[in-house]
Amino acid sequence: MNDRHCLEADDSSPDDRRRRQIGLILFNGVEELDAVGPWEVLSAWTQQHPEDGWDIFCLSTDGRPVRGARSLMLGAQHSIDDVPVMDVLVHPGGPGIRPMLHDHNHLEWVRRQRAAVPLMTSVSTGSLVYAAAGLLVGRRATTHWDSLNLLSELDPTVVTDVSSRFVDDGDLITSAGVSSGIDMALHLVARLADVERARTVRSEIQYPVPPI
Amino acid sequence: MNDRHCLEADDSSPDDRRRRQIGLILFNGVEELDAVGPWEVLSAWTQQHPEDGWDIFCLSTDGRPVRGARSLMLGAQHSIDDVPVMDVLVHPGGPGIRPMLHDHNHLEWVRRQRAAVPLMTSVSTGSLVYAAAGLLVGRRATTHWDSLNLLSELDPTVVTDVSSRFVDDGDLITSAGVSSGIDMALHLVARLADVERARTVRSEIQYPVPPI
Repeated sequence: MNDRHCLEADDSSPDDRRRRQIGLILFNGVEELDAVGPWEVLSAWTQQHPEDGWDIFCLSTDGRPVRGARSLMLGAQHSIDDVPVMDVLVHPGGPGIRPMLHDHNHLEWVRRQRAAVPLMTSVSTGSLVYAAAGLLVGRRATTHWDSLNLLSELDPTVVTDVSSRFVDDGDLITSAGVSSGIDMALHLVARLADVERARTVRSEIQYPVPPI
Repeated sequence: MNDRHCLEADDSSPDDRRRRQIGLILFNGVEELDAVGPWEVLSAWTQQHPEDGWDIFCLSTDGRPVRGARSLMLGAQHSIDDVPVMDVLVHPGGPGIRPMLHDHNHLEWVRRQRAAVPLMTSVSTGSLVYAAAGLLVGRRATTHWDSLNLLSELDPTVVTDVSSRFVDDGDLITSAGVSSGIDMALHLVARLADVERARTVRSEIQYPVPPI
């Protein structure tokens, strides 16, 4: 059994083990809905079903609030220096990822997370950061439709999926543009808890079933 | 020509008149996606097409950041005391609206906005606040599916629409639960600018066309 299988729903009592943690990284220039779509889905789940054993928090490099791509201020609960052990990382996209593609500190941090975090996920252009960090070699992945070419340029070995709203490749899940992060997060709830939980959250947020 | 018609797209040069303002009110206990869904749509539009003459900002009662229903901190650019003249108000919902239904200060503020703001809009349970403030007498409106009964209890004269994702009743637009605010905001872009702009924003955020 590898790490991947450790992140499926299981029947052990939550008391048997520590609570598991989903970290969502915020940064200046993050596309607001890239972050808040998954936040809404995953926090609605973890808040209403604490018995499932999962929590979610936001982090930023220095723990301070960030300014989104559209100027909304978003707060973080942790910095990368005081972040709890994560079981899942969500990396949103947005114009703020452009400098990250050449930011050795951030790319090195992402590589360290890959070594430590069993399930790495991204929204929209967040996958470009994973590609730049070398995480997507030979992997199936997607990104915002307008960045599919750049994804292939950053790593020609990526098997790009141009039609799915998210791509589950085991210990890596990438999603298409912006609102697709909501679909990816609903899939996460189904995978980490069960399909019924995901249906409940989808109903609560009245999210339309995508036509594809 | 009444106020309602003043809020359609027009062909006059933006230089002919002041820029128009959309205010999105934040409060403790706001459902994060209720606020950030419309924020994403409307700020993507106003940022990428400043020539359309519209701006958007967030406000809170005291201008300070608020804590969302799921614990995310969201920042405001204005307080209700320093808010620019608004042409459109967006009132999200969330658990934080429950105390508002009995908060005379907030209800009186909402009534003052109705008298001054040509187009009042709400997301999810935001319409319950409008009902409690007396804004929905005899109007067509909707809310989160789980609050439709409460909407009728608050104001039995409301003609509730139980199937639409948003209801455009002229100088008042209400939307159904949470993610429906994205649909409402896309409709706002179509109404305040044009359908082509709305299609562009929908494509950029890769939002699925609702099946209904």
